[in-house]
Amino acid sequence: MKTSLTVAVVGATGAVGQEFLSLFTARQVPVGELRLLASSRSAGKRVAFEGREVEIGLLSAESFRGVDVAFFSAGATRSREFVPAAVEAGAVVIDNSSAFRMEPDVPLVVPEVNGRLVCAETRLIAVPNCTAIILTMAVAPLRSLGHIERLIVSTYQSASGGGAAMMELLKDQTAAVVGGRGYASLDLEPLTEPYAFNLFSHNTPIGNDGYNEEEQKVIAETRKILGQPNLRMSVTCVRVPVLRAHTESVIVEFSGPAPSEDDIRYVLEKSDGIELVDDRENNSFPTPLKATGKDDVLAGRIRHDAGNDHAICMLIAGDQLRKGAALNAVQIAEHAFGLRQKSV
Amino acid sequence: MKTSLTVAVVGATGAVGQEFLSLFTARQVPVGELRLLASSRSAGKRVAFEGREVEIGLLSAESFRGVDVAFFSAGATRSREFVPAAVEAGAVVIDNSSAFRMEPDVPLVVPEVNGRLVCAETRLIAVPNCTAIILTMAVAPLRSLGHIERLIVSTYQSASGGGAAMMELLKDQTAAVVGGRGYASLDLEPLTEPYAFNLFSHNTPIGNDGYNEEEQKVIAETRKILGQPNLRMSVTCVRVPVLRAHTESVIVEFSGPAPSEDDIRYVLEKSDGIELVDDRENNSFPTPLKATGKDDVLAGRIRHDAGNDHAICMLIAGDQLRKGAALNAVQIAEHAFGLRQKSV
Repeated sequence: MKTSLTVAVVGATGAVGQEFLSLFTARQVPVGELRLLASSRSAGKRVAFEGREVEIGLLSAESFRGVDVAFFSAGATRSREFVPAAVEAGAVVIDNSSAFRMEPDVPLVVPEVNGRLVCAETRLIAVPNCTAIILTMAVAPLRSLGHIERLIVSTYQSASGGGAAMMELLKDQTAAVVGGRGYASLDLEPLTEPYAFNLFSHNTPIGNDGYNEEEQKVIAETRKILGQPNLRMSVTCVRVPVLRAHTESVIVEFSGPAPSEDDIRYVLEKSDGIELVDDRENNSFPTPLKATGKDDVLAGRIRHDAGNDHAICMLIAGDQLRKGAALNAVQIAEHAFGLRQKSV
Repeated sequence: MKTSLTVAVVGATGAVGQEFLSLFTARQVPVGELRLLASSRSAGKRVAFEGREVEIGLLSAESFRGVDVAFFSAGATRSREFVPAAVEAGAVVIDNSSAFRMEPDVPLVVPEVNGRLVCAETRLIAVPNCTAIILTMAVAPLRSLGHIERLIVSTYQSASGGGAAMMELLKDQTAAVVGGRGYASLDLEPLTEPYAFNLFSHNTPIGNDGYNEEEQKVIAETRKILGQPNLRMSVTCVRVPVLRAHTESVIVEFSGPAPSEDDIRYVLEKSDGIELVDDRENNSFPTPLKATGKDDVLAGRIRHDAGNDHAICMLIAGDQLRKGAALNAVQIAEHAFGLRQKSV
C-alpha cells in the first residue's frame, strides 16, 4: 500500500468536485500531490485544500503522468475525451460521468453492493447515476429476504443533480418570487419550466418509448449494479424544488409473499451505509434535508404494499453530491488502494 | 328550476372558501342571498362579493333556515356538528370535509365520474379528498379501454392542501432561508419538519398498518368513487414545497395488455375536465404551476410501463383548491339544481 497518492481531480470547481476535496480530508485519504484540472475557463484559479493553495491546471492528455488515481466529474464529453489518456498513463480512473457506465468491461460500482468488482488490475471504474446509487443501496440488502422481481420508483430529485448552477437558479428564482416578482419575469434558462415552488418531469430528452434519459439510466444502471438484467423496473423521474439530496418512493416486489416489516428493518439497519429513519409515532421519516451532508442513505416508511401482498413500500433519501457522487467515488478509490479495513 | 338560490358557505375565510366566491361569479351561479358563516373568531368580518359587502354571520344550528344549498369547508368537526342541522332545514348540503365521505348512504361525488348519483332527493353529498378527485378524474375515463386492476400512486402534494396557513408557512420559511437564515431558526409549528426547500411524508397520523390518514383516504375514497371496492391500490403521499396544485405519478395496471398510448391520449383528450399536456419534443408535461388556477386536471407523460406490459404510466396535476375542492363542490350544486346543460 502506498503511503501517499498522487490524485487528479477533473472538474474540481463543480458541486461534486468541491465535495471531493472535503471528503479527502474527512476520510483521511493520503493525498500527496493534488492535481486539480479544468478547461481553460477555470485553469489558473486557486483552490484551498488542507492549508495549501492549489492552482487549477489546464486539462490535457499529458496531465495524468505519475497520477495514481484520477477522479473525473466534468461531464460525459470531457470523460470520453480524456479518460483514455488517464488510463494509458497508468492511473486508476474513477469516472462520475455516464460515458463508460454501460460498457460491458467497465465495472459500475456501488462499493457496498458490488465492491468485489474492483480488483488490483482494474483501471477504469464508473460511478453510477446518483438516483441508481441511492436506490441500489436500499434495495440490494433486501435480496437476502427473497428474490426481487420488480421495482417501482417515483423520484423527488433535487437541484444539485443539475450541478451548482441549477442550485443557484433555484435559489435566485425563489428569492424573486418570495420578493413579489411574477413568474413571467423569471429567467428560466437553461430550463424550460419555472423552478421556484414548482416541479417538473426530469429535464432530459425523451426517447421514442416515452422515457427520459434519466429514467433510462436508472433502469439500465440499476440492472447492471444488481446483476439482474431482467429486473422489471417502472421508473418516473421528477425534479422538485429542493436544493440537495434526492428522495425516492420505492415499491419492491418479491416473487413470493413479502418479508415482514421487522425483517426489512433488521436487514436495512445492519447494512453498511444505511440509516433507518422510521418513527411512525413522531411522523419522522427520510427527508432530503435530513440526508443533506450525510454519508448514509436514509430509509423509512417501511410498510406492506396495500395493493400487492408480494411487495413492500419505502421512502429513501440520499445526498446526491455525497453518496450519490463524490463519496461513492472516494469509496471506490479506498477499495482500489486498500485504504480501509471495512468493506466500505 | 329556481332563478336565484339562497347560498350558505361555512368556512368562507379559508383558502377553499375564497375559491367558492370567485367560482360563483365565474360560473354564473345565480346567488340570491349569500350567507357566509363562521365561528366567533371570524364572525363580523366583511367580505366583498360581486360589488356587495357581505358580513360573516355566526355559525349556528339556526343558520340554515331558507337556505337552498350549503357549502361546508371548515373541517370535519364543524361538519359533524352543523351538517345535520343544515340537512334538517331542507338545504342541499355539499360537504368538503371527510366527516361523511365513507357513510354508505352519502354519495361521494366527482361529477364527471359519478355525477349520476346526485338526484332531486339527495340532501347530503360529500366532496372527496383532493388527491382522490384528481386521481379519479384521470383514471375513470381509461376504464373504457379495459378493466383496471391496480393503481400505484406517489403524490407530490402542495401546501394548499393544508390551507391558507400552510401556504403562508411555506412562503415565510422560504423567505427566511433565501434571506440567509439557518434552518435552526425556523418556526416549524404546526409541522414537525422544515418545509422550505424540503419535502416530507404527509403530515397526518400513521395507522398500525403504516399508512397515514391521507393515504387511507385516497385508497378508500378512490374505491368508492370508482365503485370498485376491491381495486388494488398502492399509495404514498408526500408533501412538496409547492404552493398550490397537487401532482401525482400514477401507474394504471389493466387485467389484460395495456391499451396503446394513442388510445389513452384519445380517451383523455375527449374527457370532460381533462387537458392533455404531453409534448415529448419540448419536454412539456403537467406541472403544478400549469395547473394552478385551472379548472381542468392536466394529464401527460403517457407511456407504457417498462416494468409491466399490462400497465401505463402518467403524470397528472390538478389545482387542489379548484377541482380538488371548491370547483368540484360547485359542479355538484350545478348538477343538483340543473344549472348547466352539459354533464359537468
